[in-house]
Amino acid sequence: MSVLDQSTELRGVFCPTLTPFDEQLKPDIQLFVDHCHRLLKEGCHGLAMFGTTGEANSLSVDERMLLLDAAVDSGIDGSMILPGTGCSALTDSVRLTQHAVKLGCGGVLMLPPFYYKDISNDGLFRSFAEVIERVGDHRLKIYLYHIPPVSGVPLDLTLVNRLAEAYPDSVLGLKDSSGDWGYTESLLKMQPKFGVFSGSEVFLRQNLLSGGRGTITASANVNAGAIRAAYDGFRDAKGEALQTGITRRRKIIQEHPMIPALKFITANITGNNNWRRVRPPLEPLNSAASDNLLQTLIQNGFHLSQKSD
Amino acid sequence: MSVLDQSTELRGVFCPTLTPFDEQLKPDIQLFVDHCHRLLKEGCHGLAMFGTTGEANSLSVDERMLLLDAAVDSGIDGSMILPGTGCSALTDSVRLTQHAVKLGCGGVLMLPPFYYKDISNDGLFRSFAEVIERVGDHRLKIYLYHIPPVSGVPLDLTLVNRLAEAYPDSVLGLKDSSGDWGYTESLLKMQPKFGVFSGSEVFLRQNLLSGGRGTITASANVNAGAIRAAYDGFRDAKGEALQTGITRRRKIIQEHPMIPALKFITANITGNNNWRRVRPPLEPLNSAASDNLLQTLIQNGFHLSQKSD
Repeated sequence: MSVLDQSTELRGVFCPTLTPFDEQLKPDIQLFVDHCHRLLKEGCHGLAMFGTTGEANSLSVDERMLLLDAAVDSGIDGSMILPGTGCSALTDSVRLTQHAVKLGCGGVLMLPPFYYKDISNDGLFRSFAEVIERVGDHRLKIYLYHIPPVSGVPLDLTLVNRLAEAYPDSVLGLKDSSGDWGYTESLLKMQPKFGVFSGSEVFLRQNLLSGGRGTITASANVNAGAIRAAYDGFRDAKGEALQTGITRRRKIIQEHPMIPALKFITANITGNNNWRRVRPPLEPLNSAASDNLLQTLIQNGFHLSQKSD
Repeated sequence: MSVLDQSTELRGVFCPTLTPFDEQLKPDIQLFVDHCHRLLKEGCHGLAMFGTTGEANSLSVDERMLLLDAAVDSGIDGSMILPGTGCSALTDSVRLTQHAVKLGCGGVLMLPPFYYKDISNDGLFRSFAEVIERVGDHRLKIYLYHIPPVSGVPLDLTLVNRLAEAYPDSVLGLKDSSGDWGYTESLLKMQPKFGVFSGSEVFLRQNLLSGGRGTITASANVNAGAIRAAYDGFRDAKGEALQTGITRRRKIIQEHPMIPALKFITANITGNNNWRRVRPPLEPLNSAASDNLLQTLIQNGFHLSQKSD
């Protein structure tokens, strides 16, 4: 099954790839590339690197470009990559987006500029429009990134609609990490052809049944196989059971701070403790939380091993 | 009067310098440098360029460095500059801070990393500590930047105290843009030697009477002379009247979105409409708001001209 449908629009399970760091807190390129390949092997349709989970906003523009280059150089087709390119600075967003387009990325996941708050829709529209005009490339495919609890800058439906209407060839979808199913549902009704991804696999089946495209979910870093199975089988008799299984696992993980928890689990899966490092301002999971998470996962049948279980 | 007291700590009126843009929305270097010189001539003790008012987080790291270089090359002593260097990415903060230290800046104004929210004090402590350790230069003087309404990441007093105690030679003060006088007051009691600047001239006299150092205030871009007079005269018989005057003017301006309003006023003062440009996501003041602001200012005796009135 190809990641692309006939209209080259993305669908499926995308992993917002974790970013590993070496002892100097520099991105560990080899570990990153290995992780990317493992995720694709385990069933991800593509990689949404440099999202919130990838600590992208804790990386410089150059660091992100270096990692993206390494992934492509390692043989991952650009069309399977949906890198985050939205920064608080217009010039940074343009530079990252140009780079992604040049590498043939399947799309880009774009945060709004996130420093200023209470920004008008006109101001946000102008932000995205400036990036689109400056990149000026018909290959550009933007998936908007709506994550108000973290960015502090919601993308309201009026704005999304306006962007979709103004740039029908460039603004193709949205990742909804609001945690509010009502938003996803309204968007799917308003723009039925829009590529809508749930920001958590908890909403995967609901999203697919409503015409959405799939999920871009942090937990795919550690549970790709099961999430892919739930995606493939969402219309089957066992669809609901598959969904229940991945939801249960997600809820165990998100009892803890997600990024450190996912890195802790990845360290366990790979046997490489370097995975536990996070860049400030995040902190690694402390040992009590680590023990608790590990025990709960094992009690719930999550066998930590190199293979997807 | 020197900007520096004997211990080389900053005090006085600092202007978070506006950043002008050319028709391509690139920083207009000459206009910026001219503005810097005018502000110092009008009475500012120093320039806190690349703050919220300077749209710093809408600029790339290279753009900020270029502007800082231009200001220093134009003959402004580094000791009079307090550039903003706190970014969401650790490596960007380190790079900007190293550059500022190298140019002999009087200090740096440092935001916490502002993408992730609900960060623990340990995580924020580690963020600042990493920058300090990596810069590794005894000349580094950090003024923390507390602006929760915009950054979304408050610096609570426990954290500030911990940083001040752990790095007494590097963490020297704080700009309080919370708008909450209670915070400033508590900080001054907790750390009487700390360099505390109010983020608005509305609190200037109150801050000085309580042992604070002055103000770093956006409106100094258009009202430097009067704010300086209120600073110089805060203990005089006319101190309260001077404060009332600058407070009244501030309140007129902040009826509008501050940055576009200040740029509109600067365009009027200088007769250069290029000043009205802002980078997305901000928007210039619309014409009704511009007319309204202009009339209110004139009615209140604010004569727009090249000279400070």
